[in-house]
This record gives sequence, structure tokens and C-alpha cells, in this order.
Amino acid sequence: MTNQNEIDMTKAERTKQFIIEQSAPLFNTKGVAGTAMSDIMEATKMAKGGLYGHFESKDALSHAVVDHCLSTLGQKITLQLNKHKSAKNKLFAYLDFLSKTDNPPLQGGCPMINFGTEADDTNPVIKQKVKQGMYWSQNLIAGIIEHGLASGELKAGWDAKKYAMKIFALMEGGILIARVMGNNTQLNIIVKMLKAEIEDQVA
Amino acid sequence: MTNQNEIDMTKAERTKQFIIEQSAPLFNTKGVAGTAMSDIMEATKMAKGGLYGHFESKDALSHAVVDHCLSTLGQKITLQLNKHKSAKNKLFAYLDFLSKTDNPPLQGGCPMINFGTEADDTNPVIKQKVKQGMYWSQNLIAGIIEHGLASGELKAGWDAKKYAMKIFALMEGGILIARVMGNNTQLNIIVKMLKAEIEDQVA
Repeated sequence: MTNQNEIDMTKAERTKQFIIEQSAPLFNTKGVAGTAMSDIMEATKMAKGGLYGHFESKDALSHAVVDHCLSTLGQKITLQLNKHKSAKNKLFAYLDFLSKTDNPPLQGGCPMINFGTEADDTNPVIKQKVKQGMYWSQNLIAGIIEHGLASGELKAGWDAKKYAMKIFALMEGGILIARVMGNNTQLNIIVKMLKAEIEDQVA
Repeated sequence: MTNQNEIDMTKAERTKQFIIEQSAPLFNTKGVAGTAMSDIMEATKMAKGGLYGHFESKDALSHAVVDHCLSTLGQKITLQLNKHKSAKNKLFAYLDFLSKTDNPPLQGGCPMINFGTEADDTNPVIKQKVKQGMYWSQNLIAGIIEHGLASGELKAGWDAKKYAMKIFALMEGGILIARVMGNNTQLNIIVKMLKAEIEDQVA
């Protein structure tokens, strides 16, 4: 009986995860308001009743999707950064990974721009999740800089937190520009500017 | 007869303008997908038939609204910049005006972030309008810098176009952060950084 319950739990969890993964590109591309339950039915090949058995509402599903997008992005970034040892190379890897807008880390682009913009005036739950994602990103960058300062790789006196903000804001603005322009010309210039500034700080 | 037609035209145009102005804050706050015709009926106190008499679809209205938001923002920015003579003061006025996120130039925030994010994957017409808005903004900033370089107010050798991109991207990223965070702490730090960089370029 216990075993059977465990198997059922696992299957339910697997189905939930499947729904989240199939819905994530839709929400991240079309927005929460722009994604209908019928889109999710089509993507999952599930009936409405089946979907509502796992998520009580589109809202509940959208919250799980935002969590999923942010944690997937975080894992992918971490994976890229772990390939490098030095602070400079980690920062460069961060910039390079996020500026591949023709093949972005997540389908639909940066979930912090997408969900943040949609939620800022309308959805406090998602807004809070994006806020945590922004803090995570900035702390990640600041942490790399602090590490580079502590090891002596970077010149003393660089304000890690302020510079992390700058990198994060410039990349978010640059990604938005790239997506609207339909090309990476400006984003590449921004990345080049940031790399030159980082290079200048190598001791 | 001609006079009567002119009066009718004027009245129709006035009604159209009224619908656009009442709808603009809704679209700019909730997004195009998030704004229903029923919201617009409520805001205008008009019946569906009346609205469709002026705009054949929500799409057509949304295009007019995006044009309206972008041109209103442009006019408001121009008005602020015209209060100042020097390149430095014009650039500072641009930064100050756009960083009032508790009382933004347009209700709902920056229309380039809002409509650009929603339209990038889904709506080529709006995407094109936002692209033009981005070019307009960057050319405006580059023009101020070029003017300052030509007059000798700014140090020679500053790349006006690249720096305009940087200001624009940082401010868009900073505004997004401010709206998600619910405060201006980081945006103010970004503005301060940019002002220090501009100050450094004054001859």
C-alpha cells in the first residue's frame, strides 16, 4: 500500500513536472496573460480536467512555471561559470552566455525581463519571484568579483555590488534591445564595453 | 454640407483620440494580451459597438495606443531637455526624468520595455514601432553628446553613438529593476554612476 502510494506520488509529480516543462516556453514567450489554457492543453495533449487535477488554476501553474524558468536559468548559468576558474573568465562566460539571443538560455528569452515586465503592476506573487531572481543574479556576479578581489586577481577598490548592478542592468537592457531590434549588434557592443572595463580591473 | 462633414470628422477624430487616451494606461500597465475590450468599455464608458466603430479590432487600437505612448513619451522628454542649454544638463535632465519611477512619465512605466517585451516574439507591427522608439531615444542622446563635442563642452574622443547605447540600455535595465524591486535604490545608484561618467567627460 505504501509502495503503491509512493508510485502514485511519483507519477503525479512526474506529470506535474511534464506540464510545467511544456508550459514554460509558452508562458516565457507569450506572457502569462497571452497564454490560454487551450495552448497548454495543446502543448501537453492533456484535457482541461487533467490539467486542473494537477494545478488548481492558470495562476498556480504560472507560479510553478516562473519558479522553473528562474531555477533552470540559474542552473544553466552556474554550469557555464563552473567551467572557468578566474573571476575574469567567469564574468566573460556570464556575458557570453547571456548574449546568445539567437539561441537564448531559455526559449522566449530572459524570464526576469518577460515576467518582471508583465508582473510589475499586476502580479505581486510573480513580481516577488523575479525580485529574488534579480538578487540571485546580482549576488552571483558580486560574489565572483569579491572572489577576484580577495585572491588579488582584480585590482583593489572595485565596488563589487555596484558593478554587479551595472553588469546586470546593462545586460537586461541590452537583451531587451537585441530582442526588439531582431539582432545582436548593440548587445555585442555592450558586451565588448563591459569586457574592456573588466579587463581594466585585472591586476 | 462641407462644414457639417468637417464637424463630423472632427468629432470622430476627437472620439478616436479619447478612446486612445483612455486605453493607453490600461495597455501600458496590463499589456496588450492582458487588456480586454471590456476594460476599455469600462474606461471609456462606451459600448462595444461604439468602440468597434472607431477601431476595427483590439489589434488596431493597440497599434494606435503604442504610437500614442511613444510619441507622448518623446514629447515629454523633449520638453524636459529643452529647459536646459548644456549637453551635461540635458543628459542629467534625461536621467532624472526617466528615473522618477514612482511618478513615471507614462502610467505603467516605459512603453518600450512594456510593449517591446510583450511584442518581441509575438507581434511584428508593435515590435517595429518600439524599434523606432529605441532608435529615436538613442539618436536623441547621441545628438546631445555630438552637440557637446562640437561646442567643446565635452572632451573630444567620446563615442557619442556607443555612449548613447550604454545610457539607454542601462536606464532600461535600471527601470525594469526599479519596477520589480518596488523602489529606486538601484536605479539611483545607476543614475549616479552615469552622471559621474558624464561629469568626467566635461572639458
